[in-house]
Amino acid sequence: MSDPPPLHPAVEPLAGLLGVWRGEGRGSYPTIDAFDYGEEVVFGHVGKPFLAYRQRTWLRRDGAPLHAEAGYWRMVDDDAVEAVLSHPFGAAEVLAGTVITRAPLALRLHSQQVVTTVTAKRIDAVERDVDANPVEGTLAYAVRMAAVGEPMTHHLAATLRRADG
Amino acid sequence: MSDPPPLHPAVEPLAGLLGVWRGEGRGSYPTIDAFDYGEEVVFGHVGKPFLAYRQRTWLRRDGAPLHAEAGYWRMVDDDAVEAVLSHPFGAAEVLAGTVITRAPLALRLHSQQVVTTVTAKRIDAVERDVDANPVEGTLAYAVRMAAVGEPMTHHLAATLRRADG
Repeated sequence: MSDPPPLHPAVEPLAGLLGVWRGEGRGSYPTIDAFDYGEEVVFGHVGKPFLAYRQRTWLRRDGAPLHAEAGYWRMVDDDAVEAVLSHPFGAAEVLAGTVITRAPLALRLHSQQVVTTVTAKRIDAVERDVDANPVEGTLAYAVRMAAVGEPMTHHLAATLRRADG
Repeated sequence: MSDPPPLHPAVEPLAGLLGVWRGEGRGSYPTIDAFDYGEEVVFGHVGKPFLAYRQRTWLRRDGAPLHAEAGYWRMVDDDAVEAVLSHPFGAAEVLAGTVITRAPLALRLHSQQVVTTVTAKRIDAVERDVDANPVEGTLAYAVRMAAVGEPMTHHLAATLRRADG
């Protein structure tokens, strides 16, 4: 194993996301029962101008795997951020947004497009807030979505802590 | 660490993809110079009805990281397969296709939709062939795409070998 490459300067504003994060969240939506989940999020890089992202969640009551996402985040301007995320149930989000503050890091993104396979549940739009606080050592997020006929509505919120020291 | 969960029966037809694969490929397109690359592909699962997929490539001449993809594959009928893939440059593919043969495993997929961020290069359509041969211990694929004004044209081909024993 060689040393990790230096972070690409283009994604320096996103450096606060890098690492392994674990914690708990809560999900709800008008069409489902609320649920508590455990989560691990990993943001990594290979020296190129993007961060690789993956997460997985599990039901807190029995540890059963629940959801997963994977994708990439990048900066496209001084304060403009983009993300592309894949979901196992047959959907992909293309998101654009803004770096609201750099320290603590606050990102606000909204979907430009959400595409689904013909067999997947319909999702019309997604909004994602991401907040990384280096003093608290926390990564918090909220997800809102307009889906299955519902207007933009709160869906997920979690607060994670560094799990990589 | 606990034992891995059993594979979900719904993705049993895709079992031949599971594992870590490494090898070499060659890329070309009318608008670029041909290039040779090294690649690692990982297909995993968590007992749910999908496979998690990620790959990364590097230039053979100097090992510099080149591309990466991440996403999910699932079966939606006896011989119908779907995949959702994210790309770091701001694109996502939603693919559908068919299990042509199960042993050796041969998949033929075509994009239902390709979405890109406003800053990304335009991709109109993608076709992917995937062939896993358990006797040879190989995973081979070919990618064709219609992009940046070109019609559907060969882009990538690689043959990988099991790297996880």
